Order: sequence, then structure tokens, then C-alpha cells
Amino acid sequence: MLENINSPDDLKKLSREELPQLSRELRDEIIRVCSLDGGHLASSLGAVEIIVALHYMLNSPRDRILFDVGHQAYAHKMLTGRRDRMPTIKKEGGLSGFTKVGESEHDAITVGHASTSLANALGMAYARDSLGQDYRIAAVIGDGALTGGMALAALNTIGDSGKKMLIVLNDNEMSISENVGAINKFMRTLQVQKWFQESESAGKKTVGALSKPLADMLSRAKDSARHFFDPASVNPFAAMGLRYVGPVDGHDVRELVYLIEKLNELDGPTILHVVTKKGKGLPYAEEDPIKWHGPGKFDPATGASPQSSAYSWSNAFGDAVTALAKEDPRLFVITPAMREGSGLVKYSQAHPSRYLDVGIAEDVAVTAGAGMALQGLRPVVAIYSTFLQRGYDQVVHDVALENLPVIFAVDRGGVVGADGATHNGVFDLSFLRSIPNVQIALPKDTRELRGMLRGALKVGGPVAIRYPRGNTDRVPEGEWPELAWGSWERLRAGDDVVLLAGGKALEYALAAAEGLPGVGVVNARFVKPLDLKMLREVAQQARALVTIEDNTRVGGFGSGVLEALSDLRLGTPVRVLGIPDEFQEHATVARVHARAGIDVQAIHTVLAELGVDVPLEV
Amino acid sequence: MLENINSPDDLKKLSREELPQLSRELRDEIIRVCSLDGGHLASSLGAVEIIVALHYMLNSPRDRILFDVGHQAYAHKMLTGRRDRMPTIKKEGGLSGFTKVGESEHDAITVGHASTSLANALGMAYARDSLGQDYRIAAVIGDGALTGGMALAALNTIGDSGKKMLIVLNDNEMSISENVGAINKFMRTLQVQKWFQESESAGKKTVGALSKPLADMLSRAKDSARHFFDPASVNPFAAMGLRYVGPVDGHDVRELVYLIEKLNELDGPTILHVVTKKGKGLPYAEEDPIKWHGPGKFDPATGASPQSSAYSWSNAFGDAVTALAKEDPRLFVITPAMREGSGLVKYSQAHPSRYLDVGIAEDVAVTAGAGMALQGLRPVVAIYSTFLQRGYDQVVHDVALENLPVIFAVDRGGVVGADGATHNGVFDLSFLRSIPNVQIALPKDTRELRGMLRGALKVGGPVAIRYPRGNTDRVPEGEWPELAWGSWERLRAGDDVVLLAGGKALEYALAAAEGLPGVGVVNARFVKPLDLKMLREVAQQARALVTIEDNTRVGGFGSGVLEALSDLRLGTPVRVLGIPDEFQEHATVARVHARAGIDVQAIHTVLAELGVDVPLEV
Repeated sequence: MLENINSPDDLKKLSREELPQLSRELRDEIIRVCSLDGGHLASSLGAVEIIVALHYMLNSPRDRILFDVGHQAYAHKMLTGRRDRMPTIKKEGGLSGFTKVGESEHDAITVGHASTSLANALGMAYARDSLGQDYRIAAVIGDGALTGGMALAALNTIGDSGKKMLIVLNDNEMSISENVGAINKFMRTLQVQKWFQESESAGKKTVGALSKPLADMLSRAKDSARHFFDPASVNPFAAMGLRYVGPVDGHDVRELVYLIEKLNELDGPTILHVVTKKGKGLPYAEEDPIKWHGPGKFDPATGASPQSSAYSWSNAFGDAVTALAKEDPRLFVITPAMREGSGLVKYSQAHPSRYLDVGIAEDVAVTAGAGMALQGLRPVVAIYSTFLQRGYDQVVHDVALENLPVIFAVDRGGVVGADGATHNGVFDLSFLRSIPNVQIALPKDTRELRGMLRGALKVGGPVAIRYPRGNTDRVPEGEWPELAWGSWERLRAGDDVVLLAGGKALEYALAAAEGLPGVGVVNARFVKPLDLKMLREVAQQARALVTIEDNTRVGGFGSGVLEALSDLRLGTPVRVLGIPDEFQEHATVARVHARAGIDVQAIHTVLAELGVDVPLEV
Repeated sequence: MLENINSPDDLKKLSREELPQLSRELRDEIIRVCSLDGGHLASSLGAVEIIVALHYMLNSPRDRILFDVGHQAYAHKMLTGRRDRMPTIKKEGGLSGFTKVGESEHDAITVGHASTSLANALGMAYARDSLGQDYRIAAVIGDGALTGGMALAALNTIGDSGKKMLIVLNDNEMSISENVGAINKFMRTLQVQKWFQESESAGKKTVGALSKPLADMLSRAKDSARHFFDPASVNPFAAMGLRYVGPVDGHDVRELVYLIEKLNELDGPTILHVVTKKGKGLPYAEEDPIKWHGPGKFDPATGASPQSSAYSWSNAFGDAVTALAKEDPRLFVITPAMREGSGLVKYSQAHPSRYLDVGIAEDVAVTAGAGMALQGLRPVVAIYSTFLQRGYDQVVHDVALENLPVIFAVDRGGVVGADGATHNGVFDLSFLRSIPNVQIALPKDTRELRGMLRGALKVGGPVAIRYPRGNTDRVPEGEWPELAWGSWERLRAGDDVVLLAGGKALEYALAAAEGLPGVGVVNARFVKPLDLKMLREVAQQARALVTIEDNTRVGGFGSGVLEALSDLRLGTPVRVLGIPDEFQEHATVARVHARAGIDVQAIHTVLAELGVDVPLEV
């Protein structure tokens, strides 16, 4: 059946009775595609029926269907003409792992970060009404994304605006990690609480005041022994001015179609609360949806996947803080819903009373860190670079202004590869560097990471330790080398041209200098403050400097070097290599680095321009 | 009575019966102090009794009292040993207009932005319990600040954490502007709704399950015919896991003392909902609390204040968009609760259907703009520079990534003066410049502002038009000069040393060059992209360049010039003048600029260093 569906129009030719079969086929295809080379499996399996029902009842692209985060939309991609290209997902030149405006007219928003769909929908509703147009807007948002303050604040304005839209709350009791927070608890309550089952009469009482479709729906609900709701002041959504309907079974596609059809006829904003299962239809994924959130290649029959003994930077960080917390009772780790991704499973088990998951609320993570630091703790906020963007003001206003000792473990700094433009952490050196008091360190390996963590605890003030996505070296637990705080390290002599680089970029610098006697390499492991002593030294000795960074060329490490040389009144020419001032599409990290011009070949090209005798590339 | 109170200990010597008199005296003193030279009058008058009651029942500084935003805390300052210094408030070397950790041990947080207190309190509660300590934490947050997503998200985690703290919801139905949003509507509901008055029985039913003090309170409530609440799932706060008590009269200080005493004995998080009046006790301020939010000097008896015919940059912007909206039906203005401050009163009346106030939720403001732009509008997000920091990720992820035509009218760019470090807009050039696709323009006057607004509508893509706090020239309505987009403007010939500056800094550059024939001045009105043609020209002709900016020296305009010259392989020496890499304390704008080294004298000093024959300063 699926192979005949190449657009939402094709879908609409099916009868409602055929939709469960189509959903099964979509599910099988999602499993097949993900098993080939990985993908956002569990969330996409959970959202199949919601997507089928929305496309069946709405007319995309005229009607706008927004997917929060956008990683659950594989079925949406398949139903909108991209089925054949699904195996290219997250690969260079292939489909994005998320929805993306440029990829299809059916993708209403370009997305990757959570909690943005409702503010977008709010804006769209105003645009529609202001331009006198008439189309439908539906946003699908998970209960995890709804813990984000931005979503809650948008809901606040949506409820007040009275603008017509449908919000499908896809409640699977999960973000990537298990969900936390009181709203989540409340949603559990909605499903089980006694007053909820007794609400039928409440529902009936309000029927008179309601429009016909909703009244129909409520009577029908009674018959089907489900529980529908609308009266004000009964749940937080209704209290905020939204019509609340639910909870309903999010895997009953005909029921969803029926409800969306009815709700389409109503004015104002409506929340349809549907309960789904992440990983639905794949027993081992239902069992452990966290593991199956974004697996790599696997055998669909058994769930077996190639074993990897890789040791990630996240693991290295997790092991380091777990050990450090044993010796320093002030250490406390905060995560915004990224326990697994940040390598904190072990830590959270070893130090449960010094661990806090604030949900998808990066701003709260940063400022809770400020509060802890004010009262004597040494908090470590473990956060992906791209998500730290959401706590930028909190770093400035709540942490840096009072020079508070908050450590930021900035994971996924630099290009992240397959997740693409929304997830690249290529702005952090620039936006952090311009904040007074913030120190920035880039470890080259696990030993340096440990030295920097311990050093940060000692030195105080806000410190960002930034490391890339990917793997690093495993080092015996006891090894904690000392690190002269703020110092660079000359790794390779050579006074003709000196390469300055920290972190991931240092690997390229070292490889590029290999076999070139005049080319020196400095491990510029502190981006702020710079090691001015060593910078002055190399700038005075060398004919030219080349800075290399896995960060935008604008305002980053290279600019810091230019600023310092201007202040030192040194005219040594500097070539700045970094990510160009454009968003970088998904591909492998190595490919993006090559395209961006920071890899070995790019460094060789610059060295050749500077007159260094570089061997021909093979 | 007040003159004998120099600490919270002195306060505790008073009897409860004396507290209303003390409150009156505090109120009189606040009015007197504010009338001298302005201040945060209305909110400070509204919070007097809350502050007296908290200091009476808690033991600051051991117990921590947090004030959200921190501008309502004048009574707090007076009760904690700073009464004599109140007339120095917001003046150089004087008290801050907000709470500030460095100013007093009684100031628990340094603050100025809204909605941060709850996340701070959450962090403090974890610090307290994790370190095995035992003190109280109370946060005072207004209903306006509670519309901020960060506060809502923090509440979500606080409710879940079960951590003991007291949240005083100071409900005055206002942020600086009138409040918007569904939560606000709900709070109105709490005060009047029928079910609320019928809740007594609900309260009684739960008494059995409650601890003694709350049970006492509820019975007492019954007697006093007030309405107290705790049962779960009755209001959003209770639904989120917080004990909800209220609403109570926030100007009945004895009642507040009674309640706080009782609530102190309870575990877990409690919200005490108090209803207050902004401007309380001053009839004309009660009447128009928006006008009296932060007045200048006035006559306390009559409310008369010196008339000013000043025309602010905000007015210039407001007039310009009001006119532009008449010719372009796509134009739509969004504000995060800053209608008055952003000069939008006239616009909101002229174009009510193309105006949206999203409450204190800058992230929602930016992303709602993205949604509008996606659906055909040309939104203008009117926002202070310091508050745009709170929408940084949304600019990157929701606007810039798809190069959407969202215009940011960035008000209060640069040093703001009296409001100090929390409010200075000195990071925007740096953090915006590093975002791909974002264009940045700095008008030197009202004509250029108009040209830039109209140009931005034409050119598309994200454009930030950044102007300072303060006054500018009034220009006849019809004048809309054309502006060559992206072009700099040579205002003064001179090829020895060329000064490059845009916006406010240009005034200093022009004044400094006066009478110095070799010194050229360029109006560098586009910070991104730079006018590379003119930059190359002046860099090739001049002996040296000096960049001047009302922005941090790190990663800002000057760094952009250094980057460009490095890319152009031009070695012309550049001196970068800007705000040093430190937070700037409050003083007049002129004084901060002088301290920072970007004023005329500072430019002269640099010119002299460069060998220009500068006349001695008089």
C-alpha cells in the first residue's frame, strides 16, 4: 500500500479502514531504513499514527504541520514524496534527520532544538489572520519538549490569543532521557487520577455551552468509555485558555482521524493529548526507548548491533566527574535532559544526591548552577554546545556578572556531522569569548580534560571546557596530570610558520606539520585568556601564524589572536582558518571540516601560499 | 520608627502591631527618595509589606531572600543598612537600582533581568540540602516575571523536587506594561472565580492529610472568610506539585507575617499568592503605574514632573514603524512586554491587529517572528539589546538558519548608564556578528534609522538595527532618505589616521577629529557585512586605523575589521577602542564611556600615541 503513496493526496485516496494497515507498513519501513544505518527510530515509531491522521485530515502544504524537534517525522517524510530517499537520511547530500524548510514544501519549519514549535505556530497564526488567509496550523509536540520554558511561555500567549490551531501533545512519557518535572507528573496524573474518571459528568455539564462538534465528541466519548474534557480550571492547559481534549490512544489512527476532523471545525486553540509509546511496534525498542532513541545500524529481527568499544568524549567527561565528585563534596552535576548523551548515567548512579536533571530547560540549568555556586557548591553544567546557546543570557547575567564558579562541560563543541546545521556547536568560542570573566579551555585528550576539570575547580570563576563529539583515548582512572592553568604548550618546534590550535583542530595542525621542519605547532588549549606570553614569543619569532579552529571564523579563537596582536602592537601576519560564516549542512565531521577548510589539506594550502615547501597531496 | 532600623535585627525588635506604621514610613521614604532623582517607584511601593514581613520572619543573610528582577527591593535596601545611601541609587559609586551580591550580604542574587529568581532558588535549595545545611529560601516574583518561560520551567522542576522554599507570588496584574497571557488571566480568575469561593469545603476535606500548621491556617482562613487552598489538581500551581496558598492581601503586613510564620514550618515548596497594588499609597501612581514604573524627579505632593520635550531613539523607531506599517501590510511588530519602553504605544493603537505582546518571553518573541516570516509577514521584533541575549539561540536556530526576513529593532544598544551592568547592551555586536546571515546596521540619526528600516524590508534576511538609549533628532514625518544598503559613508576626509565608527560612537569620532586635518572619519554604519570596498580603500591610504564602538572590544566591530584586514592581507595597524572586557558598573553613559575609553579624550590619547598632533585637553 505504501508504495503507491507519494504525496498527501495519494494518502487521501485511502479509506479510513485502510489507515491502520498503512501505519503498519510505515512502521516496517521506518524500522528497515533505520536498521541500515541508524536514525531516530523510537520517536519516529511512536508518531506514525499521529502523522498519518494529520496528513489525512489536513491539506499540507497549504495547511501547516509543525513537528517540534523534528526528529519524529520519518513517517511525514515518507508520506510527502521522500520515501525513496529515506536511506540517504543524515548523509551528505541526503535528507536531513529533522524537518527542513528547504527540503520540502511540506516541512513547515527548520528545526532540531526542542520547544520551538509553539512559538512558531503562534507566529503563523497571527500571519494567517493578519493577511486574511485561512488555513490550518497543527503543531506536534512531545511531553519532553513541553518541559521547555519557551513552549510553556508560548502556550501562555496562545491560550490568551484565542488563535485557531491544533496542538497535538504527543505524550510518551519521555524526552530522550526519562522525563522529569511536575508537568510530566501531572500528565501521568491525567491518565490515572480518579477525578479524571469521574469527569464524565463535568464534561456533560459543559456540553450545553459547547459547539456542536465538541458536544458530539463528548457524548461519543461517554459511549466509548473514554474521557474527554473541556471545562475550564480543571487542568493547567484548560486553565491557560486552551481547549483540552484527551487523553486518547495515539496509536488508534481511526480515532485520531475522527477527532482531528471534529476539532478542525472548532475555533480557538485546542490541545489534543495523545498517549503513545516510543518505539511502538518493535518490542526491544518499546522496552528500552532511551537506548533506541537514535541507534546506529542494527539487525531488525533481533535488535543486535555491532559492538563498539569506542570511548567517547562524553564518557571521558562522565568518568572524570564521577571520580572528582568523590574527592570534592562541593561538586554537583546538572543536565538539561541529557543524562545519556552527556555520559552521566554512571555519575547519576554514583552520586544521586548531587545530580539534577532540570528537563529541557537550558536556561534553568545554567541559573540553577548560579544559585548553587552562590551557596557554596561547585556545579558542573553538562551541556551540548548547541544547547548552551539557549542559556546564553543566563551565562552572562546569572553566572559571569558575579564571576561565579560554575563549570560548563561543553560537549559536542564544533562540527557534529550527521545532525547538521541545527546541532553544530560552532558558535560557542565566539559567544563565550565576549563575556567577561568566562574562561575557555579546549582539551586535546582525556588527560587534559581531567587536568582542566580539576584546574577549573581550583581556579574558580566560570570556566567552559569544550570538547567535540566523537571518541578519545581511554586513560587509567588514577591519572590526573597537573596543568599549568592558562598555559599553552609548544608541541612542535619550528619558527618559520607557527600553527596555533586547540582541541580537535590541533589534530589537524599536528598532522599538517608532520615532515615540515619550519612549521611549529602550539597547543592553544586556552582560548580565554590567551597565553599572551607564548603568543608574543611565537609572534616575534615566526614569519607568520596560522590559527585553526573548529568554530566559526567570526569572532572566535583566530579573532582573539588578531585582537591580542593588535593590542601587543605586533604586525605578524595571521591566517585565520575556521568554519566559514555559513550554516554547515550535514555530512561526516571529516567532510564538513574539509569543505570548511580546516583539515590537513586546507592547512597545507595555506602553508603553500605562505611559501612553505609543502609536499604534493597524494 | 524607621530611623532606628539599621538591620533586620532591629526590625525584629518591633512588635507585630508596629509593622503597619513601619510600612507607612518606608513608603514615605521611598516616595521621598524617588522624587529627588527618580527610581523604581511603583514596584517598590507595591512590595513594602511583603519585604517587611519576610525580613521580620526570616533571618537574612543566613536565610536567603531573592527578589526577581530586583527593582522592587527599595524597602529591602532600607531595612538592611542602606537607608542613608538611598539617594545615591543608580548614581556612580552609589547603590544599584537592583539587588547586587557585592553591595550587601543581604542581597542574595545579582539581578536585573526577569524570571531568574526561581532557578536560582532551585539551585540554592539543592546546595543547602546537599551540603547538609538548614536555612530558608524565599523568592519574591511578580506575576509579570512569571510569564517568562524560564520561571515556568523552573517551577516545573521545583514542584517535582519537593525542595523546601517559599515563593511569594507578588500579583499586581502588571509587568512594566500591562500583563498579557493566559496565566495572567488565570490569576485574575483565582481572585474572582466562583469555584474558588466554594473551595472552602475542598480545603476542609484536605485538612486531615495536612500538617498541623497548614490545617490551623485553613481553619483560620475559614473564620476570616478568606480562601486558602491546597488540594492537588485544582490550580496550575498545585497541579505542578507546589502547595498553593492564597490569594491574600499583600498590603496586610500582619497577615503576611502570620502566614509566613506558619508556612516556615512546612516542608516542600509553597507558593504564597499575594495581591498587591503597584504604586500603593501614592494615588497618582496607583492610577497609572506604567507611567510611574520608573519616573524621573517629581513633586511628591502633586506628581508634577519637569516636562521634557526630548525625542528618544525609541520614539524615533516607534514613529518610523507606525508610518511604515501604513505602506507595507506585511509589517507586524512584536514586543516582549516592552510597549512603553520601546516607543510602541502609538503603533499599538494605530495597528492593533499587527501588534503582539508575548509577555516577558524574549525567546517566544523571536521565534514567533520566525513563524510570521515563514508565512509571509515582515515582522519587527522590538527588543532591548540586553534582552535579546535571552533569544540568542532563537536568532540562530529559528531565524538565521533559514535566512528569514525578521527585523530586530535593537534598542538600548551599548552602555545604558544608570541601570548598570545587568542592562548594558554591549555584547550584541559580538554575538550577532558571529551568526551567519545576520546583518547589523547602526544608524547615526533618525533619518538613517528610517532608511535602514525601509532598507531592511527591501533586502530581506535577518537584520538587526541597533540604536542606543537616549535622545536623537526629530525629523519631519515625510522624510525617508534612501540608503545604499551595506555602504559606509566618508564623513570627513583625512588620510593619515582614519577613525571608523557607527552609531553612538560616531559622535565621539567626529568630535575627536574636529580640527585635526589628517584625521578622517568614516560612518561605519554597517557592522555586518562590512563595506569591504571602503575598508580596503582607507586601509591602503591611511597610516593607521582606529575603530571605536559602544560594545565590548572582544569579538565586536573592531575584531571584524581585524578579520577583514587579515583576509585582505593588509597590514595597516588598527587600534581597537571599545568597552573593556569587564562588566561596567552604573554611572551616566558619558562617565561609563569615559572610564571605558571610547570618548573624545580616549580617542585623542590614541591619536597622540599614533603621532597625531592633538591639542592639549582643556
